[in-house]
Amino acid sequence: MRRYASVPFSDVQITGAFWSERLETVLTRTIPSQHAQLAKHNILRSLKLPQPVPPLTIPPHPNGFTTEIFWDSDVGKWVEAASYALSHRRDAVIEAQIEEIVTDLERAQAPDGYLNCWYQEREPENRWTNLRDNHEMYNAGHLLEGAVAYYRATGRDRMLQVMERYMDHIAATFGPDKKRGYCGHQEIELALVKAFHATGKTKFLDLATYFIDERGAQPHYFDQEAAARGEPAGKYGQGTYEYSQSHIPVRQQTKVVGHAVRAMYMYTAMADLAAEHGDTALKQACQTLWRDVTETRMYVTGGFGPSARNEGFTQDYDLPNDTAYAETCASVAMVFWAARMLNLDLDGQYADILELALYNNSLAGLSRDGETYFYDNKLESDGSHQRWEWHPCPCCTMNVARLVASVGGYVMGLAKDEIAVHLYGGAKATLPVAEGQATITETSAYPWDGAIRVQVQSDRAFTLSLRIPAWAKGATATVNGAPVPMTTERGYLRLHRHWGDDRVALHLPMTPQRVHAHPEVKADIGRVALMRGPLVYCLEAQDQAAPLHRLRLPRGADLTATFRADLLGGVAVVTAQGAALQNPAALYQTEPPTEQPSPLLALPYYAWCNRGANPMQVWVRE
Amino acid sequence: MRRYASVPFSDVQITGAFWSERLETVLTRTIPSQHAQLAKHNILRSLKLPQPVPPLTIPPHPNGFTTEIFWDSDVGKWVEAASYALSHRRDAVIEAQIEEIVTDLERAQAPDGYLNCWYQEREPENRWTNLRDNHEMYNAGHLLEGAVAYYRATGRDRMLQVMERYMDHIAATFGPDKKRGYCGHQEIELALVKAFHATGKTKFLDLATYFIDERGAQPHYFDQEAAARGEPAGKYGQGTYEYSQSHIPVRQQTKVVGHAVRAMYMYTAMADLAAEHGDTALKQACQTLWRDVTETRMYVTGGFGPSARNEGFTQDYDLPNDTAYAETCASVAMVFWAARMLNLDLDGQYADILELALYNNSLAGLSRDGETYFYDNKLESDGSHQRWEWHPCPCCTMNVARLVASVGGYVMGLAKDEIAVHLYGGAKATLPVAEGQATITETSAYPWDGAIRVQVQSDRAFTLSLRIPAWAKGATATVNGAPVPMTTERGYLRLHRHWGDDRVALHLPMTPQRVHAHPEVKADIGRVALMRGPLVYCLEAQDQAAPLHRLRLPRGADLTATFRADLLGGVAVVTAQGAALQNPAALYQTEPPTEQPSPLLALPYYAWCNRGANPMQVWVRE
Repeated sequence: MRRYASVPFSDVQITGAFWSERLETVLTRTIPSQHAQLAKHNILRSLKLPQPVPPLTIPPHPNGFTTEIFWDSDVGKWVEAASYALSHRRDAVIEAQIEEIVTDLERAQAPDGYLNCWYQEREPENRWTNLRDNHEMYNAGHLLEGAVAYYRATGRDRMLQVMERYMDHIAATFGPDKKRGYCGHQEIELALVKAFHATGKTKFLDLATYFIDERGAQPHYFDQEAAARGEPAGKYGQGTYEYSQSHIPVRQQTKVVGHAVRAMYMYTAMADLAAEHGDTALKQACQTLWRDVTETRMYVTGGFGPSARNEGFTQDYDLPNDTAYAETCASVAMVFWAARMLNLDLDGQYADILELALYNNSLAGLSRDGETYFYDNKLESDGSHQRWEWHPCPCCTMNVARLVASVGGYVMGLAKDEIAVHLYGGAKATLPVAEGQATITETSAYPWDGAIRVQVQSDRAFTLSLRIPAWAKGATATVNGAPVPMTTERGYLRLHRHWGDDRVALHLPMTPQRVHAHPEVKADIGRVALMRGPLVYCLEAQDQAAPLHRLRLPRGADLTATFRADLLGGVAVVTAQGAALQNPAALYQTEPPTEQPSPLLALPYYAWCNRGANPMQVWVRE
Repeated sequence: MRRYASVPFSDVQITGAFWSERLETVLTRTIPSQHAQLAKHNILRSLKLPQPVPPLTIPPHPNGFTTEIFWDSDVGKWVEAASYALSHRRDAVIEAQIEEIVTDLERAQAPDGYLNCWYQEREPENRWTNLRDNHEMYNAGHLLEGAVAYYRATGRDRMLQVMERYMDHIAATFGPDKKRGYCGHQEIELALVKAFHATGKTKFLDLATYFIDERGAQPHYFDQEAAARGEPAGKYGQGTYEYSQSHIPVRQQTKVVGHAVRAMYMYTAMADLAAEHGDTALKQACQTLWRDVTETRMYVTGGFGPSARNEGFTQDYDLPNDTAYAETCASVAMVFWAARMLNLDLDGQYADILELALYNNSLAGLSRDGETYFYDNKLESDGSHQRWEWHPCPCCTMNVARLVASVGGYVMGLAKDEIAVHLYGGAKATLPVAEGQATITETSAYPWDGAIRVQVQSDRAFTLSLRIPAWAKGATATVNGAPVPMTTERGYLRLHRHWGDDRVALHLPMTPQRVHAHPEVKADIGRVALMRGPLVYCLEAQDQAAPLHRLRLPRGADLTATFRADLLGGVAVVTAQGAALQNPAALYQTEPPTEQPSPLLALPYYAWCNRGANPMQVWVRE
């Protein structure tokens, strides 16, 4: 069933201005500042076993909860993000920092391979007794992802060896003929598939498969372990087992429910395993869940999970703007899932959502200076929603860093006789294809401009599949200057030929577009959002002549895109002649409200809140 | 300064269908069912001193708070409402119930005149030690209002004598040369003015004047009494002394703040005292506060106080619909205040708001069957906002009952040579005027129809001032069939002549009107409300062909009013051809949303939620 493999980040060179700037920022600002934060908050110190438990730098939640139990995962994600950044440019300081962490982990690891600094320091006797709440495998998964990334970026396998010993311990502990179990927070499953891809060792794949197959089976494992702890067999504090998508076996799931990040990580692993095993039932479950989330539960920015209560999903079409949770981590994880779906089927619907989640809800999570973050991504703010430097639960910081630094890994897909280009913006890769190889050099000023040039150097016959985004109405293409028919197959222009040194030019019209929401999305009724290319736009108050709530963008108003090199490091803005409500004589009056023309300036959503406190709206009255 | 006196409820006979039906319902359903509830919840039993403290029938609030401390006021308000109803038609059972209460109060009263069943039973040593929180004078005020009403309705003065002894005790305790103090919840001030009007005894007026003058003076009395209790001199749990409008002296107040009912009761007393004393500073404060509330802080339904947190005011233009608190008691109290303002100045702006609050936010508080209530009056509901049979704090139940039963008291105003008619709907009164008398008989099907007939029988020359509501654009009038010029003075058509047996006809056009809100009321932007005559309309979901949120009332759509005798006991509905959003193909799309015509049916706001659970909207998308 599986036809495409992602081309790893380490095999793709990012050359375009947009992502090069972000990679440089992550490498030089984000990774060092995150290391400093991990040090400042004693998270790095917590790895140095045996140690006295380091003091908390952030007071616990009033209910006593702290995020210490996740700290291993923060380290793992930082190693992973840093490794991706190193693939952009090596850096001796960062490498030394990673090496110190690896040494700490090596020393901390128990003789039997177990490795969880929280449990080892505090409750070594209680390991594997509360998978539902205590994130042991979640931490293991993030450390494993870090190890794989570091290995791919540098060839160094010391951390991978540590983690392989840990995985062997887990595989020796859990399985069909051993202890039952799976983690309350999915993560290890997709990490294990990465380890399989990096090493070819099927034991990783087998363990991932067990966890996915076991999830939601009856009798419910979380009931059993609760009973073993002497607690009432029960439910999450958050509600039912839907919170962790363990309410029913995964192949029976048809609705996206519960904690959004857990859901997305699980769907990612499900799509991976569907591909590896040719598992049609698993693939169909993925397709059903994909339709569910994209047709009823997704923000226009590619964000997910409207509710802070469960950090997750609620009801169909429940997509409020000013209280949107839309956690950065959830849309980052959507990019992971979409990439796996794209490997199952070369279908532009997956690439379109991948790009949407990447450029909008995810990228908004990282400030322009690379050192502040959004955890939740509101689509409307009165100015009180601000970026923060750190967070009691710093998951999103490293998540957005690892996504941005690994963007190269989402650019291309590879099959036996085919190279697919999913994302544009300037990238280069030399790839094995058709028993030979080809060098693909894509050059563009994307996402600001839709003029794409793809240089192919090869001596083989293969298919070059170029994604034509759904928004690119009227796209055209030429090969060596000669127009080619724009017959697309599921969103891709598939050019089959014997390639030499050939030049493909693609024109993706970037006319600003109005977007309207389904009328069951009550918050968006009578409103319009603006998009241009892959970017969702928003209004920030400081760019307008009237308060946001008074502004309206009439349906017929011309939309003009202009590149503004002076603004936020260079962005294309969209301007229009809008209208602003004027003050009436009274609180209530029978005369219709009057308006005056008022120019509107919209900028990309990802770039908002980089100039101080500022009210913002994605959905503008129409 | 004062020119007009209200004509008491007992001197006006309600003859029109609309209010006769409500009065009949209150007399035969509301008053008896409330008496049963007061009995069921041990509130009546609490008067029978000495008694073991009766058990609570409603569990206390999780913070330990109960409303037992207000129980005397519930009894006082019920006596008051029942007395107004008796003025409509005497009823032996109700009268016996009142008499039993009076006997209980008479027995309970302490030898020194003090009368508070809660304190007398539980903490007799602590009386007058916590005026800020414990409502002693508030209870006293409501009992006094009940006593005055019962006296006016029946001529029986036993309860009034009890209360006069209590007021004498209070006057002997508090004053400039005695103990300082005033109640945290204003109420006694306006009650004392009523007692003065009923008895002519200036001691009542003097005590009211003291409380109003002392309020907010420094050093702050609530600080002093807190210190005397050994508590930190402080603030209300709710925040600052703005909560009880005691933050600054009343004459310096320019913004309506804090708990809305306390505010309205205080402004009522301030307007009363401004009139009695010709106190210009007090009158100007009233005028300033009136402008503030009506120009920035009032719902279109005549409701006030958007926030449940403080049961009161927040910020200018903060008027959300789906979370509106707009307590029934607050708009009932606005009717009281507006009536007093109308006595200070015969100005239609006061009568317009009186009528708005009466027919809409207040009247909505009582169900059609007269036995269920709204405490808070939302302007938009998803169907979850329901009427209740009783409430832990049943203040609104008796408040709406006493307003409806006393509606006759708001119909007319009287000066030396002038009779003013403020409200229409069928009423008759014989009044002393110009050293003679006149019988005014107003006949109409108001508020359904604007054809008003006023028969005047007199042999005196005086001015008959007929209110021309601001909404009645194009009103016309005739006297004995001959047109009169429609020269109005501050909203009143003032007809001066020597009257005999004359017929005045007034035509108030009742064309349905669109109302738009100030654009700072964010919830109402792009929306329109409908009014016809004094009534605000709303859409209930069960009358529409599409879900409420999908409906739109285009600006040009014709509005048609039709009297529907079959609906809710007979109401005029407003219908229009609206439009309903149709289902699109996707969650987001670039095509504009499509609509289909969809008929809209609006009914009076006061009548909503009388046919079961039902989503509702006052503000409809335009």
